[in-house]
Amino acid sequence: MDYQQILCEQDGPVMVITLNRPDKLNAFTGVMGMEIADAFQRADADDSVRAVVMTGAGRAFCAGADVSAGAKSFDTTDPHGAGNFGQRLANGGRASGVSFVHAIFNCRKPSIAAINGGCVGVGATMTLPMDVRICSSNAKIGFIFARRGLVPEAGSAWFLPQIVGLPQALRWSITGATFGAEEALRGGLVAEVTAPEDLLARAKAIAIEMTAESSPVSVALTRQLLWRYAAQPDPFHLLSIDGPMSMERGAHADVREGVQAFLDKRKPAFPGKVSRDMPSQYPWWEQGEP
Amino acid sequence: MDYQQILCEQDGPVMVITLNRPDKLNAFTGVMGMEIADAFQRADADDSVRAVVMTGAGRAFCAGADVSAGAKSFDTTDPHGAGNFGQRLANGGRASGVSFVHAIFNCRKPSIAAINGGCVGVGATMTLPMDVRICSSNAKIGFIFARRGLVPEAGSAWFLPQIVGLPQALRWSITGATFGAEEALRGGLVAEVTAPEDLLARAKAIAIEMTAESSPVSVALTRQLLWRYAAQPDPFHLLSIDGPMSMERGAHADVREGVQAFLDKRKPAFPGKVSRDMPSQYPWWEQGEP
Amino acid sequence: MDYQQILCEQDGPVMVITLNRPDKLNAFTGVMGMEIADAFQRADADDSVRAVVMTGAGRAFCAGADVSAGAKSFDTTDPHGAGNFGQRLANGGRASGVSFVHAIFNCRKPSIAAINGGCVGVGATMTLPMDVRICSSNAKIGFIFARRGLVPEAGSAWFLPQIVGLPQALRWSITGATFGAEEALRGGLVAEVTAPEDLLARAKAIAIEMTAESSPVSVALTRQLLWRYAAQPDPFHLLSIDGPMSMERGAHADVREGVQAFLDKRKPAFPGKVSRDMPSQYPWWEQGEP
Repeated sequence: MDYQQILCEQDGPVMVITLNRPDKLNAFTGVMGMEIADAFQRADADDSVRAVVMTGAGRAFCAGADVSAGAKSFDTTDPHGAGNFGQRLANGGRASGVSFVHAIFNCRKPSIAAINGGCVGVGATMTLPMDVRICSSNAKIGFIFARRGLVPEAGSAWFLPQIVGLPQALRWSITGATFGAEEALRGGLVAEVTAPEDLLARAKAIAIEMTAESSPVSVALTRQLLWRYAAQPDPFHLLSIDGPMSMERGAHADVREGVQAFLDKRKPAFPGKVSRDMPSQYPWWEQGEP
Repeated sequence: MDYQQILCEQDGPVMVITLNRPDKLNAFTGVMGMEIADAFQRADADDSVRAVVMTGAGRAFCAGADVSAGAKSFDTTDPHGAGNFGQRLANGGRASGVSFVHAIFNCRKPSIAAINGGCVGVGATMTLPMDVRICSSNAKIGFIFARRGLVPEAGSAWFLPQIVGLPQALRWSITGATFGAEEALRGGLVAEVTAPEDLLARAKAIAIEMTAESSPVSVALTRQLLWRYAAQPDPFHLLSIDGPMSMERGAHADVREGVQAFLDKRKPAFPGKVSRDMPSQYPWWEQGEP
Repeated sequence: MDYQQILCEQDGPVMVITLNRPDKLNAFTGVMGMEIADAFQRADADDSVRAVVMTGAGRAFCAGADVSAGAKSFDTTDPHGAGNFGQRLANGGRASGVSFVHAIFNCRKPSIAAINGGCVGVGATMTLPMDVRICSSNAKIGFIFARRGLVPEAGSAWFLPQIVGLPQALRWSITGATFGAEEALRGGLVAEVTAPEDLLARAKAIAIEMTAESSPVSVALTRQLLWRYAAQPDPFHLLSIDGPMSMERGAHADVREGVQAFLDKRKPAFPGKVSRDMPSQYPWWEQGEP
């Protein structure tokens, strides 16, 4: 796959996206954002991809927005500012494709961030719509927006509290400080800390573990049901969706295989494909909305 | 009380519901669902019941949906499938009474799941609308839907994140794996792990502890206020309800007794009854809604 | 500043509010509520205040509502009851100013509760809209409403689950029990426990740590973005706000200073003021609403 600022390889059922500007600590640009969105859309469409792992080349995960334009880096009104970055955040990337937030959120395959070093600003917020985050013991993470005069972006004022709870989200976001792997683990941002050399293998192992015995269509629906209903005001609308969906799935060959495999005490081999077998209730949100 | 698939006994102020198909590991059926709903509605209506404890007979809590019809167990379109089960989940039980989710959610008495062994699928989701879960050290719990080709049901895409947070809910629901008591405790699904022989006594003790010094009407309102407002987008509508409710309760004999008992340093004896003394604000949601 | 029931002093950039009825264990009255609201509104308006710390004079933080009128203390229909208290909770203080809940919630400066002893009822709920809570090892905290016949007030059915999660919020609120510092820490209500003599200094240190390197305008916006979006049903409305806000901020002198200071490896000196430099998107909620 032909990208400029990321690498995208497939290792068995796992797509591995590597942010690939190691000489710039993988600093984020508008191009990188578009490439990330594109890769997640490929993963979504490709039945051979069961999960996505994202990591960084070299010693950083992503050092945040590229500030090589200096103090004007965020000034979209200045012809010498790196307007492309601000623009992409501002319009959610709609003018020129789908934003990476939407592409990760809507992806029907689970994703795992393998944070291998510095991970600040947009580098940190881009991991939040993913399902799992792990980091190496030398990771440095920061929601540093307040220390640059900025505000939490890319929906992180919603995503971060979903993941770590409101008090921890307030503390990290107001302070703007950078913190290490142990604090990330204690605060609930990452599920595990590994030795640097074990990080990528562990992320792939989690990707396999999360999908190996699960129906691809079930994983796709589960991911969307949880992300889209976890913060709803009550369970009542969900109950009007998950009942009919369970019933429609119950008549599908996937469930016959799932139950038979359980009764046979063997691993299931689900025939259903995400590209073809999503139930009639999907998507249950209005067309045109994300 | 005359049920086929559950036992329902009262021990002082605690109603104990025992799922009672021990030879089938208490596998769930439509009949069991209706009986659970009925028992919670009785608990709701009976002023002598202060709390509900649910456990399972024999070595399991509930092994999930009854799959004795084999691979077609979830196929409501097949005359030999266990259509009754899917049907009940699909229509929320409305056609033939109130679903167990609604009955537990709306109950004005707190409930405690005492998970005594295997607890998977609908066995696990039925504990989620309860206020407390504890388990014995030999419990095995699983939100196994994805491994059968199904999706999280009974509103669990909302309930599970409320209880354990979104990252843990995603991990358990996508993977579909079964896990033990220690993982359930670490993940926040259960509040305590006990030795098997201590489980039921401990659940009853928590039921007593939660209600012994609290006004029955206050407990009923507190339960509904928290479940119905915890996930609202903001506190503003709540502030328009809890203020008038505090004022109306403040003029009730319960509060005079509560304050006098506090000043006298004695245990209060609240005169108010749930069947009779709910304030005019209750229910504050629209009629016809759950 | 001339208050009757609180002290309000400034120590560098930190406003310290001390509940000051030590002979009454700082029991809450309508006057105290109005004074707290007023102090937070001053903090909001005064650019020299970067954060607020609240504590109690003497051995308690706040023993709850003043019940010196005896059993009728909450009866607003009784001429000898302390109607003023109930009235203020009931109308959110609108008739006579802004309620303390709204004043704390809307304040553009972060706040820290330093719980120095007994902290029950409204004493506990008033800490919930604050950003951080710490307590001394001798603190005693209780959401004791159910034991007085009352219900969770001041929006605490929303605030408490945001902070400690729904299961812990249900347990404390239904039981109505009082608990110590270690349980508050384990349950996530407080971020730290200190020795009594270290409490106030630690609270001030956290206030400094949270604001010293952050832009005042960024802190104000971050606080409002997180409190107002953390519990929204999804991130989509937020994405339509945080993008344009990032772009407008990106052209502000604050961001030029923030990026330049980062590149220079020095502490930033942000020129922006909360009283003057809030972006055009603020407030993004409808006028007239809180």
